[in-house]
Amino acid sequence: MKTAIIMGSDSDYQVVEKTEKLLIEFGIDCQVRVISAHRTPYQAEEFARNAEENEIEVIIAAAGKAAHLPGVLAAYTALPVIGLPIKSSTMDGLDSLLSIVQMPKGIPVATVAIDGAENAALLAIQILSVKYPELRQKMKAYKKKMENEVIEKDNKFRNK
Amino acid sequence: MKTAIIMGSDSDYQVVEKTEKLLIEFGIDCQVRVISAHRTPYQAEEFARNAEENEIEVIIAAAGKAAHLPGVLAAYTALPVIGLPIKSSTMDGLDSLLSIVQMPKGIPVATVAIDGAENAALLAIQILSVKYPELRQKMKAYKKKMENEVIEKDNKFRNK
Amino acid sequence: MKTAIIMGSDSDYQVVEKTEKLLIEFGIDCQVRVISAHRTPYQAEEFARNAEENEIEVIIAAAGKAAHLPGVLAAYTALPVIGLPIKSSTMDGLDSLLSIVQMPKGIPVATVAIDGAENAALLAIQILSVKYPELRQKMKAYKKKMENEVIEKDNKFRNK
Amino acid sequence: MKTAIIMGSDSDYQVVEKTEKLLIEFGIDCQVRVISAHRTPYQAEEFARNAEENEIEVIIAAAGKAAHLPGVLAAYTALPVIGLPIKSSTMDGLDSLLSIVQMPKGIPVATVAIDGAENAALLAIQILSVKYPELRQKMKAYKKKMENEVIEKDNKFRNK
Amino acid sequence: MKTAIIMGSDSDYQVVEKTEKLLIEFGIDCQVRVISAHRTPYQAEEFARNAEENEIEVIIAAAGKAAHLPGVLAAYTALPVIGLPIKSSTMDGLDSLLSIVQMPKGIPVATVAIDGAENAALLAIQILSVKYPELRQKMKAYKKKMENEVIEKDNKFRNK
Amino acid sequence: MKTAIIMGSDSDYQVVEKTEKLLIEFGIDCQVRVISAHRTPYQAEEFARNAEENEIEVIIAAAGKAAHLPGVLAAYTALPVIGLPIKSSTMDGLDSLLSIVQMPKGIPVATVAIDGAENAALLAIQILSVKYPELRQKMKAYKKKMENEVIEKDNKFRNK
Amino acid sequence: MKTAIIMGSDSDYQVVEKTEKLLIEFGIDCQVRVISAHRTPYQAEEFARNAEENEIEVIIAAAGKAAHLPGVLAAYTALPVIGLPIKSSTMDGLDSLLSIVQMPKGIPVATVAIDGAENAALLAIQILSVKYPELRQKMKAYKKKMENEVIEKDNKFRNK
Amino acid sequence: MKTAIIMGSDSDYQVVEKTEKLLIEFGIDCQVRVISAHRTPYQAEEFARNAEENEIEVIIAAAGKAAHLPGVLAAYTALPVIGLPIKSSTMDGLDSLLSIVQMPKGIPVATVAIDGAENAALLAIQILSVKYPELRQKMKAYKKKMENEVIEKDNKFRNK
Repeated sequence: MKTAIIMGSDSDYQVVEKTEKLLIEFGIDCQVRVISAHRTPYQAEEFARNAEENEIEVIIAAAGKAAHLPGVLAAYTALPVIGLPIKSSTMDGLDSLLSIVQMPKGIPVATVAIDGAENAALLAIQILSVKYPELRQKMKAYKKKMENEVIEKDNKFRNK
Repeated sequence: MKTAIIMGSDSDYQVVEKTEKLLIEFGIDCQVRVISAHRTPYQAEEFARNAEENEIEVIIAAAGKAAHLPGVLAAYTALPVIGLPIKSSTMDGLDSLLSIVQMPKGIPVATVAIDGAENAALLAIQILSVKYPELRQKMKAYKKKMENEVIEKDNKFRNK
Repeated sequence: MKTAIIMGSDSDYQVVEKTEKLLIEFGIDCQVRVISAHRTPYQAEEFARNAEENEIEVIIAAAGKAAHLPGVLAAYTALPVIGLPIKSSTMDGLDSLLSIVQMPKGIPVATVAIDGAENAALLAIQILSVKYPELRQKMKAYKKKMENEVIEKDNKFRNK
Repeated sequence: MKTAIIMGSDSDYQVVEKTEKLLIEFGIDCQVRVISAHRTPYQAEEFARNAEENEIEVIIAAAGKAAHLPGVLAAYTALPVIGLPIKSSTMDGLDSLLSIVQMPKGIPVATVAIDGAENAALLAIQILSVKYPELRQKMKAYKKKMENEVIEKDNKFRNK
Repeated sequence: MKTAIIMGSDSDYQVVEKTEKLLIEFGIDCQVRVISAHRTPYQAEEFARNAEENEIEVIIAAAGKAAHLPGVLAAYTALPVIGLPIKSSTMDGLDSLLSIVQMPKGIPVATVAIDGAENAALLAIQILSVKYPELRQKMKAYKKKMENEVIEKDNKFRNK
Repeated sequence: MKTAIIMGSDSDYQVVEKTEKLLIEFGIDCQVRVISAHRTPYQAEEFARNAEENEIEVIIAAAGKAAHLPGVLAAYTALPVIGLPIKSSTMDGLDSLLSIVQMPKGIPVATVAIDGAENAALLAIQILSVKYPELRQKMKAYKKKMENEVIEKDNKFRNK
Repeated sequence: MKTAIIMGSDSDYQVVEKTEKLLIEFGIDCQVRVISAHRTPYQAEEFARNAEENEIEVIIAAAGKAAHLPGVLAAYTALPVIGLPIKSSTMDGLDSLLSIVQMPKGIPVATVAIDGAENAALLAIQILSVKYPELRQKMKAYKKKMENEVIEKDNKFRNK
Repeated sequence: MKTAIIMGSDSDYQVVEKTEKLLIEFGIDCQVRVISAHRTPYQAEEFARNAEENEIEVIIAAAGKAAHLPGVLAAYTALPVIGLPIKSSTMDGLDSLLSIVQMPKGIPVATVAIDGAENAALLAIQILSVKYPELRQKMKAYKKKMENEVIEKDNKFRNK
């Protein structure tokens, strides 16, 4: 099981780090790279064109502002691409979100919430689970754990 | 290969029909249902809880306005859920988009563009392709065909 | 007179606390719980299905981002549900507001302002007042007190 | 059981008519009036100040653009006020929604979706149900009927 | 020459203070008051109904969130009312702006920029100038002074 | 009493016509002109610089999209300028509104609602009323007439 | 003098046609092509990489929704790229605008108004005018003609 | 090669400084000035009318809120004008962006991202490159340098 997290700028790593951590926690191989759709377009193309051959199964792409990276990678590959919109200093992330999610017919990007780093990882895991039953089990355990954490917090309030 | 398309209202079928058609075109079994997160919550729960057992591998959920359906289904299953925001008569689809994509940490929904019916299907296909190599090949052929269609249109303009 | 305040995450308590305080100030029994529509959907269902039997008369549900909690609870109960949108780190609360207020036909949620904690309580009180005349009197006294506070502040400016 | 539907302009009646119909269907007395917060402020004041004495138990106020009517009525009464934002020719209803829902601390308005005429009625019914058990039963029957309608539509798709 | 500045909450005074100062600088009598359209509706009505008789010639009304104050005052008087939208903690002032500027046909409010305290004063002065030629001269001097300040700053950059 | 209505494009006349009609109805001299801040900047300057000398007392400027006209005229005159944002084919009038209302410190524009043609006229009348008592009387009669029209409509609904 | 107009879809031609016409009117060679950043990424790259060698001096790129085309072309060339956002069926063009204008540091796109087809041409002409004095003269004549058209329309209103 | 950077207020210099620096780094003569479209309209006119004669080849205009400066300058000159929207304290820069980019037919402004200071400079350089081949070469070197910086950052992550 191998994934790649591509970020448009290394400053996105403060968000993306949580994606990486969660994938590693699930035992998924995860390559983190800095590739800009605009500053290193040849690297973007090369990465995406060879991703399948390099045994990557899901791509996560994080970018802010006019966030073209997820769509550009999706143009060069048939692999599923998850788009993670990063909130930048203006427009509260709306520019990133619309630039990623509003993809035209033919080239989808699976978009998660603005700065939704953990959900990008969990979506990758759910996608991989279609093939790898052990991940499905881990995912169920993760959901169970989340459930229990909420129930525990609920109990604290109920017993106040 | 089995998918389900759940729509929150049968009026969404005019959009969702294109999703169904494309899945069928790719030879994917596709169950279309009307389940409302708010009007038939028990059906929603029952469907999502049993989806995996019923051999569904990817769920597509379409809904408009305060579009809770994709998130609600995702709460009850570990399967990947694709959210398709439907434009309604007010707010130009922004309410549907934000209600679907801005999922809190822990429960992702893979969101596509507002009224992006074909992309919902193609994303499902890309997800299934992780497991089924024949779908990956079909997806590549589909992308090639799209490419050729654009090139053909381009040629018409170039030769005007 | 019994109400319940359900919040999607315990981090919402810094807002919701003011709702609780005001209900208590009016002498209304008020159970505060953490239930997530997405992480603990069974708890959400169970709570809402049994709320009436448990003698709860009004439900207040607070949530942020893709804020499904109020609508999900409303799906399982015929009790009035008040939705309190919580501002999160992106989108300035617009996502929460639209996810709560734009409910489709059939299942209303009585929505108050973003982070409008006190108004959620006061709306619950106004609803209960339909049945309990003593609350109506307290509400009138509360409005009178607010009026006097504004008049007092006004006097300070007038006498400057 | 007596309610009042106040609309800011008689042109709002095409939306508000559905509110009236649903209330009548539930056997609730329902007075429809045209009162403008800006053009007939004295009527607004007089209506709201006397509403309780006139045995009105819930007020529904519909208005568009800078929609002050619900908030203005709420200022003069301790009764619960439901705000129904009407979509006008510009801004897609966002101006009406924000003018109604973003009420400052102290005077809540129970806001429903833009043009959500039926939900305004259903919310009034849920509020009255706190006092009138027979309405609660009717509401449950209504929800059951909605549920069955969705299930029926679902069956059509399942049996296609 | 007499004006009144009405603010919906005394917390608005940090913005409104600049309006007051500028009016005083122009030698205009200026009464500052705290009147809430929702918490003290009778004061609002009384103030607006008597404003003309009290020799007030222009009213400035500042309010945030669902900012009804300017429109409510305008309903009760034929005097020109200037609306000053105050930015609150959510929605970046958009709610205040739309609630003030989108007034329905018949009752205009002369709206200035969000937190545009000085411009509210200057607009009042321009309105009064229609009657008082000496204010027109002062306004021209003020514009000349602003012009010179900009030219001076420009010179600093040109001579760097 | 003399006013000018300046529109950025003759296509705005379908909105602006209502402004003109209402001013004429009030017996106010009203010059309608087409002047573009961008296509005829010299005309804009010339008009605004000479407006006062030409005995114009209030200027109404209507424009759409990046609607600079009201602000540009205000830069060249000390007369009060009313801005009327026109809805164009994209952005639902939000661009026009923000371009007009968000004027920087020093040069206010008295902004009315998007496509608020009548309110632009009424605001001009209210401004002129500061000087001309007969207009104040007419304005009061106009408000009374509006009030009566609403009351009449209200009576129709009450007597249904 | 040679320019290229690239559109993401042939359906954009109804807008783009006006750009082409205006460029031809100014005697500028203008190649119109259909190239999709997502469906034909290799064509996009090839076009942009070779544009300079092919003696193109300015590129105009039109696209809707998540409009990546202008930015993607700009990534592969040092030529100036003009971005023309196309309004699509949802989001009123805001998605296209933000996807084009909010380019990250390093790769600018010269953005014009949503559906601003003529302005895209005029901006290209202004850019080429830096090098070609005859275009500057034609541009001045064009501006003069526009000015005269507005003055003529103005005269019609003045002489009514 | 000569450019001018005009800012509406000297407070914009903290953003604009980066534009100046980059132009100087490219060896381009760059005059920085403070000219307000509203406070110093005659200076704006004079500057723009004489810019061509003063051998300025590209104008960069930065402004916030109702940002008329770029459009106003463009009205008086046939030179290309680059608009740089400045984020102000409210509306997150959306008002500045729309006021600059949504220019009506006939007078384009080449708009860059909100606070996109460097991109304003780079766009000016790309425009000048049409005439000055040495700038084209420097621009290519700049792009190459950016590319290498991203690749270097990428390598750090790859070798972690």
